[in-house]
Amino acid sequence: MKLGMIGLGRMGANMAQRLLHGGHPVVGFDPRIEARVALQGQGAETVDSLVALVAKLPPPRALWLMVPAGEVTDAILDGLRPLLQAGDTLVDGGNSRYQDSQRRAASFAGQGIGYVDCGTSGGVWGLAEGYSLMIGGDEAVVERLSPLFECLAPAPGRGWGRVGPAGAGHFAKMVHNGIEYGLMQAYAEGFSILRQKHDFDLDLQQLADIWSHGSVVRSWLLELTAKALAEHPSLHDITPYVADSGEGRWTVDEAIALGVPAPVITQALIARLRSRDAESFADRLLAALRNQFGGHEVRKE
Amino acid sequence: MKLGMIGLGRMGANMAQRLLHGGHPVVGFDPRIEARVALQGQGAETVDSLVALVAKLPPPRALWLMVPAGEVTDAILDGLRPLLQAGDTLVDGGNSRYQDSQRRAASFAGQGIGYVDCGTSGGVWGLAEGYSLMIGGDEAVVERLSPLFECLAPAPGRGWGRVGPAGAGHFAKMVHNGIEYGLMQAYAEGFSILRQKHDFDLDLQQLADIWSHGSVVRSWLLELTAKALAEHPSLHDITPYVADSGEGRWTVDEAIALGVPAPVITQALIARLRSRDAESFADRLLAALRNQFGGHEVRKE
Amino acid sequence: MKLGMIGLGRMGANMAQRLLHGGHPVVGFDPRIEARVALQGQGAETVDSLVALVAKLPPPRALWLMVPAGEVTDAILDGLRPLLQAGDTLVDGGNSRYQDSQRRAASFAGQGIGYVDCGTSGGVWGLAEGYSLMIGGDEAVVERLSPLFECLAPAPGRGWGRVGPAGAGHFAKMVHNGIEYGLMQAYAEGFSILRQKHDFDLDLQQLADIWSHGSVVRSWLLELTAKALAEHPSLHDITPYVADSGEGRWTVDEAIALGVPAPVITQALIARLRSRDAESFADRLLAALRNQFGGHEVRKE
Amino acid sequence: MKLGMIGLGRMGANMAQRLLHGGHPVVGFDPRIEARVALQGQGAETVDSLVALVAKLPPPRALWLMVPAGEVTDAILDGLRPLLQAGDTLVDGGNSRYQDSQRRAASFAGQGIGYVDCGTSGGVWGLAEGYSLMIGGDEAVVERLSPLFECLAPAPGRGWGRVGPAGAGHFAKMVHNGIEYGLMQAYAEGFSILRQKHDFDLDLQQLADIWSHGSVVRSWLLELTAKALAEHPSLHDITPYVADSGEGRWTVDEAIALGVPAPVITQALIARLRSRDAESFADRLLAALRNQFGGHEVRKE
Repeated sequence: MKLGMIGLGRMGANMAQRLLHGGHPVVGFDPRIEARVALQGQGAETVDSLVALVAKLPPPRALWLMVPAGEVTDAILDGLRPLLQAGDTLVDGGNSRYQDSQRRAASFAGQGIGYVDCGTSGGVWGLAEGYSLMIGGDEAVVERLSPLFECLAPAPGRGWGRVGPAGAGHFAKMVHNGIEYGLMQAYAEGFSILRQKHDFDLDLQQLADIWSHGSVVRSWLLELTAKALAEHPSLHDITPYVADSGEGRWTVDEAIALGVPAPVITQALIARLRSRDAESFADRLLAALRNQFGGHEVRKE
Repeated sequence: MKLGMIGLGRMGANMAQRLLHGGHPVVGFDPRIEARVALQGQGAETVDSLVALVAKLPPPRALWLMVPAGEVTDAILDGLRPLLQAGDTLVDGGNSRYQDSQRRAASFAGQGIGYVDCGTSGGVWGLAEGYSLMIGGDEAVVERLSPLFECLAPAPGRGWGRVGPAGAGHFAKMVHNGIEYGLMQAYAEGFSILRQKHDFDLDLQQLADIWSHGSVVRSWLLELTAKALAEHPSLHDITPYVADSGEGRWTVDEAIALGVPAPVITQALIARLRSRDAESFADRLLAALRNQFGGHEVRKE
Repeated sequence: MKLGMIGLGRMGANMAQRLLHGGHPVVGFDPRIEARVALQGQGAETVDSLVALVAKLPPPRALWLMVPAGEVTDAILDGLRPLLQAGDTLVDGGNSRYQDSQRRAASFAGQGIGYVDCGTSGGVWGLAEGYSLMIGGDEAVVERLSPLFECLAPAPGRGWGRVGPAGAGHFAKMVHNGIEYGLMQAYAEGFSILRQKHDFDLDLQQLADIWSHGSVVRSWLLELTAKALAEHPSLHDITPYVADSGEGRWTVDEAIALGVPAPVITQALIARLRSRDAESFADRLLAALRNQFGGHEVRKE
Repeated sequence: MKLGMIGLGRMGANMAQRLLHGGHPVVGFDPRIEARVALQGQGAETVDSLVALVAKLPPPRALWLMVPAGEVTDAILDGLRPLLQAGDTLVDGGNSRYQDSQRRAASFAGQGIGYVDCGTSGGVWGLAEGYSLMIGGDEAVVERLSPLFECLAPAPGRGWGRVGPAGAGHFAKMVHNGIEYGLMQAYAEGFSILRQKHDFDLDLQQLADIWSHGSVVRSWLLELTAKALAEHPSLHDITPYVADSGEGRWTVDEAIALGVPAPVITQALIARLRSRDAESFADRLLAALRNQFGGHEVRKE
């Protein structure tokens, strides 16, 4: 099934490649020539405009957006809107906020254009291992694109599914990422405790390896932990600065809005904020306060 | 390699069975006749006293304790001490506190008796899938018992290892369980958010299944989540009461003692305490205080 | 200085009364006749329409809104807009979201109408003890109304101030309430620990009283705690259900948006969500998971 | 009532001085000559040995220990034991762990010597404002010393009391400090949010002052916050490094042991641990993991 892939960054290029390997022709669009050239090397056609992209695809068309969430997505959708026709389908495979996907789906529905929000997990490993896909949108539209989903997923009938109406896919992906924050933080804390127990001089990579077989905490993230520790045993060359994308924040927002207590996912987000708060005004104030009431010495900078 | 298994409960009986299937003769001891009879059915000898157990094992002996941590362990060790001789080895495969294991190992070392602390993970699935084993103790002693560890582990050379001196195995297992609390709570919160979003009417089991293939959050606990949701779709028949064993608490203690910030593991423990705090004095006081300053109505019981 | 008070609920009526006692004539508006009658008893004029209210006030007018934040505020402001003229001033003393106040101030500025956002703290005690007022808006406008602020505040020159431009007052009040959540939860947890230590059979009210004199934790909330415990020693008649208004949630949102780690304020909010989560799906899932991997019994409902 | 004060550090010297001003003769002991000389200047006798101290006090004696908790306390008690006689009374006014106080009281009871644990709050302000005293021990013994407590407390009959049997005083003080951590962290977070909102350029000291009059969050710690901000407006000269004494940790331990969920007090402790964790292995691992699965760039050191 022929597909137009919009956005040939790390994720989009890999997905295009997996589809090509699966026998699906891909027309790739990206404003950066080096991205287009790279994909051509994988056997894809590429174009340098949305107009050219749409022209290359026979109706009913299937176009997959793999671009950063936010204004870029709206700009591309605005560009595509006059070029498409009823029966065409758009898939947003990025990390859009689910309310944006609901709004966009409703807006394209008025033109008879299908709009599918597809939460996509798997990272850089998806090319080889397949992607986990949580899909929101009309059943008929999702059904029509199912050959693409089957190809992108890790195995036929596994790792993908329509989970609900428009927005449901990105909602599920948002929560997925919230869980991911919690899992990562749990491992990070555990390995920090192991490392700090100098008496035992534990080999953290060995433990990650042992636990990866048969233990209750085995997981893909644990395998990656073993790999990271193999590559950087002491991690001393890696700055303790942890970025966060929108989805963790949105999960916390949503939990509060829904009245769901989510202390662990929330603390995992806060730990990331803290990793970037070098100045730490709160801690300065605490030190100053201890000095005020107890006469405890403060360290001066 | 012939082994004496002390304690034929859920864990001990399964481990004995896995060893038997692996060709290692087992003599089982448990004060409960039904536990002994059950293991006999698997092809093991059983005995009803520690004296008989020791008599059945040729020196240098290997004895494996699989009993609840705490006083029971000390009572059995006190009973065994006069029966053993230099060169024999004791393995504590339970969830003992690592400081207890250090103390016990030192005490048996004085008699020339090997003492190995073996953190054991895998739960009821270990019989079929093998156990993850984190082992603390003398290298030579661990080496001598390696055929047993190889058999209990999921695969040769995988899922087990000597991680350090006496106590290191139970220390690692303690942290393993702390991580486990964090992971479980992260999933539990995520699925609660999914469920509470009534607009999308998400199928939680479907999502657990999708995520189990290719997603960043795939793990064994996630597979068990899918299984639990398949068996109890709404979980309405399960009381929201979550027990905790000692190892989570000890992990929190240890993190504080070592100065390691562990907000997620700690909050996961606190969430369990909260699940059992039906009375919630703190929440009553908060409601009373809001009434005091703001005149906000309280609900009366 | 004559003032129109819009909204004669618990807060508005008390503030009107304090102003009356301070010699400031008040015209009160509320759609509920009983609220108007009550205020008349305090010596205020009252009216049953915004038109009548504006007519009773000589320009340049001062009108104070003390109504629930949200749509009600916008509805009243829409009603007032055509009735007011350049030079008049509106004060929103409620708990509006600060972005709403910024928007409203900008919109009235176009008509030459002053708009002041006044975060108001003090609860039902404000009538007797005075209110703490954090004010955002133009300096000249705030200056003109200063006699009113002086009267409402606990003492001349104390407990009130212009803290910044439009929105700053409600921003400060939002953070004030976030802090309030954290303080209340800290006390609630502490008293729960005291109470749970049955060996000592501590008298919680006595401790709240002792600490209220000379201790590091003395505060007004602690005095209210003593009072609440005097009225309800065991709190057994108070349902452990804790409401939250918007400002705590907004503080958490804002902290995340600003990248400020706020674990305590956030956990205090989450504790309130938890107090209302009777069903506790997360805890059910945890119990089900423990059963899956460890064979730990679950309690059945 | 004549008192022997053991330990003339910041707290002990101030308390001795307050007693002297109240007309109670004090004999001070401290191994440091400068501490003794300083107290002599206040009108106290001083001695350089425990033997001399006991000799100066008429039976039944009253001795007050104001020394760092832990081994120092036991060493002094061991030194005093043979010097005292039935009817004498020891007061431990330091921050001892309550279980230590229970043990010590029981041990001195065997000799007919009274032992009182007195949790003492007020810090360096106690000299001028009086101390809040939570007292554990026998009623008759506490009654006999009541003139001293009345003098040390902020006002007659206020701010002090016998709260229970031996250990109860230090238990209460421990929880007091746990609450203190939570309160301090709540303020620190709130002021950090205020400060980070650059749009409003808020004056933090002004807000601390405003809130100190009439607001729900008014407290002594808030007044100290205003004072600290007056002395160090930006706090830029104060290192964000926050020490913790034992009592916060013990409160967390105790909450867990008692099954009381205390997320806020616990997070306040964890924030302090985090302030001292410059290396942040956990954050390094998180950054490394994000790189592993998502190809997200890490910052290199």
